[in-house]
Amino acid sequence: LQSKLPALGTTIFSQMSQLAAEHQAINLSQGFPDFPSNPRLIELLAESARQGLNQYAPMPGVLALRQQIAALVQGCYQREVCADQQVTVTSGATEALFVAIQALVRAGDEVIVFDPAYDSYQPAVELAGGFTVHVPLLPPLYQVDWAQLEKQISKKTRLIIVNSPHNPTGAVFSHQDWLALQALVLKHRLYCISDEVYEHLVFDGQPQHSANQYPELADRTVIVSSFGKTFHVTGWKLGYAVAPVELTTEFRKIHQYVTFSSFTPAQHAIAQLLIEQPEEVKGLAAFYQQKRDQFSGALADSAWSLLPCRGSYFQLADYSAFSDLDDVAFCHWLTREHKVAAIPLSVFYRQPPSQRIIRFCFAKEPQTLTLATEILCQLS
Amino acid sequence: LQSKLPALGTTIFSQMSQLAAEHQAINLSQGFPDFPSNPRLIELLAESARQGLNQYAPMPGVLALRQQIAALVQGCYQREVCADQQVTVTSGATEALFVAIQALVRAGDEVIVFDPAYDSYQPAVELAGGFTVHVPLLPPLYQVDWAQLEKQISKKTRLIIVNSPHNPTGAVFSHQDWLALQALVLKHRLYCISDEVYEHLVFDGQPQHSANQYPELADRTVIVSSFGKTFHVTGWKLGYAVAPVELTTEFRKIHQYVTFSSFTPAQHAIAQLLIEQPEEVKGLAAFYQQKRDQFSGALADSAWSLLPCRGSYFQLADYSAFSDLDDVAFCHWLTREHKVAAIPLSVFYRQPPSQRIIRFCFAKEPQTLTLATEILCQLS
Ligand SMILES: CSCCC(=O)C(=O)O
Ligand SMILES: CSCCC(=O)C(=O)O
Repeated sequence: LQSKLPALGTTIFSQMSQLAAEHQAINLSQGFPDFPSNPRLIELLAESARQGLNQYAPMPGVLALRQQIAALVQGCYQREVCADQQVTVTSGATEALFVAIQALVRAGDEVIVFDPAYDSYQPAVELAGGFTVHVPLLPPLYQVDWAQLEKQISKKTRLIIVNSPHNPTGAVFSHQDWLALQALVLKHRLYCISDEVYEHLVFDGQPQHSANQYPELADRTVIVSSFGKTFHVTGWKLGYAVAPVELTTEFRKIHQYVTFSSFTPAQHAIAQLLIEQPEEVKGLAAFYQQKRDQFSGALADSAWSLLPCRGSYFQLADYSAFSDLDDVAFCHWLTREHKVAAIPLSVFYRQPPSQRIIRFCFAKEPQTLTLATEILCQLS
Repeated sequence: LQSKLPALGTTIFSQMSQLAAEHQAINLSQGFPDFPSNPRLIELLAESARQGLNQYAPMPGVLALRQQIAALVQGCYQREVCADQQVTVTSGATEALFVAIQALVRAGDEVIVFDPAYDSYQPAVELAGGFTVHVPLLPPLYQVDWAQLEKQISKKTRLIIVNSPHNPTGAVFSHQDWLALQALVLKHRLYCISDEVYEHLVFDGQPQHSANQYPELADRTVIVSSFGKTFHVTGWKLGYAVAPVELTTEFRKIHQYVTFSSFTPAQHAIAQLLIEQPEEVKGLAAFYQQKRDQFSGALADSAWSLLPCRGSYFQLADYSAFSDLDDVAFCHWLTREHKVAAIPLSVFYRQPPSQRIIRFCFAKEPQTLTLATEILCQLS
């Protein structure tokens, strides 16, 4: 059997979570919270299932949930989107990204992604017959050089995939970045996928921006987000795509043959929670900023050098002051010998620069962060 | 935007369910039960969520569930499969089918499917760059002519997709069919996808066969099944694939970028139910046979002519004795004017024969079937 993805193994997230489990390490690798979600959400799930809402949801998603998604977009970004024709519920943001890529990319197309980038973009593009072109983000701020990026646009470029707040770096687009992106998308008639799964996790009082706020960009963009991140239930695998009507039509044609629909009781539960507690989402940034500050504060006087984290729930840390190991070896060593698991940054790159940086997930209980940072501070 | 699936609209299942809702018709179109599932399963779901099992499941599925799947395969078909390396949990059988096709089909490959066939195979093959070759199943028994089928195999043929019990016809492979399939797969070195989502719904005391029972076939086959059908929770979107280690490796490489993992609490709940009530599955055939018999019995003296139904939860019915409408028009008329929704058979064909046959789903409460058949009996 000839592999469709010959270069690929198991995702780094599965690898590191498994290694963490084997060594009973504190798992700051794969991005997920270790604290319970809103108990009301759990009750609503149980109620929906008890009420018998256990058969196929409508293919584009439960309408009540799509209406709440439209209300969320309106509330956060003052954009009016049509719940019926522009919103599609998916089995996690991963499915939304995969389907959007299948809908937009044809054999031979080029797709611009950042270097580093989230690990699912490239294989999804390759399965659609396309090629990724990787535009470097430069430390410490991991900003986009839009003039450099434009030089990578060719006749074959069809799509650009952006991600702000950015996983793995925690960088966040400014208003200027969004304007530059919009200008390029329009000028070169590209399509855009905007991965905004960490949209509500923007720190230090920065404004929360989205492709939703740039109408001409939004007209050519599939915006992807995730309730797993927003409601601390990554295992619920409930995401969504917001797109113009024409793109939504093509998106759904594919979605209906990829998963058809998503777990019904959870759709009702989240719709109801958004009705009952619409303020929950607004508190997220402060909630996670506190965790970032606990984590970075505890390492401030250590041998670690922390990079800026402006959003997401990830913190990059440079360990070059006390180890010569490459980042993959370092993460294995850290997990095995010191019982803290993290993700090597190099795995997110097409062309990893020579650096010694790893990614920690700080979406954890205060006591987890205390335990982990105590260990990390002792290294030097 | 150039469509990747230009010929396709919304699936017939969404269309007819929506039409049924609009006209408050009894919905015997899309295949799903209208009765509650096992209340213990609902309780187990609530318990799993309350216990905090709400973060990412392992990418291949919760191990306890994979072990129960292996036990089910062992119990039903006396085949030993490795839970760790041969079983992958997916977001419904739809995802399993899509991923298996993405893993196996390369640009230019030919894939043999039956005519009629379940509607997701062809678009999934086309998205992978392949082409479907449709081999007719002939009424009234919709059996495969294996000699005819072999004539359709070319140098480009890579995969055959079979489906027994068969949706939409209710046909079931005999032991001879499985042997003929195995011989062809080996002779021509094909791969096989065996869609067995109705595996437990085989009637009239026939033996329940599976690709799992034919070792040389199973060595080149991805077997797909679904807990949605087995436990009356189609909205839970929980399916799985059983495949040899080498195929599973490729399958998971794709699965991890399509959905990554599936709804965690439901995986724990189904694993626990399979431990507590392993006999539940064994009663399914008798349970659904009673429904088939109620439905077909009630129409026995009507103007409808019923085709044999040997498995699945679908009954084909010929209405040519009392209407000249084509089957699409007939289904719309039946829904609008008589408040019973069904699926036209022609939509499952590449080349629909001239016939007037529609598909009813009988996975319904006795009173639903009584109401529906009373209406259907009055037509003539
Ligand atoms: C789908 S598992 C990966 C979770 C995640 O988004 C991350 O750790 O970056
Ligand atoms: C995924 S909706 C279709 C359900 C089904 O299997 C059918 O009605 O044939």
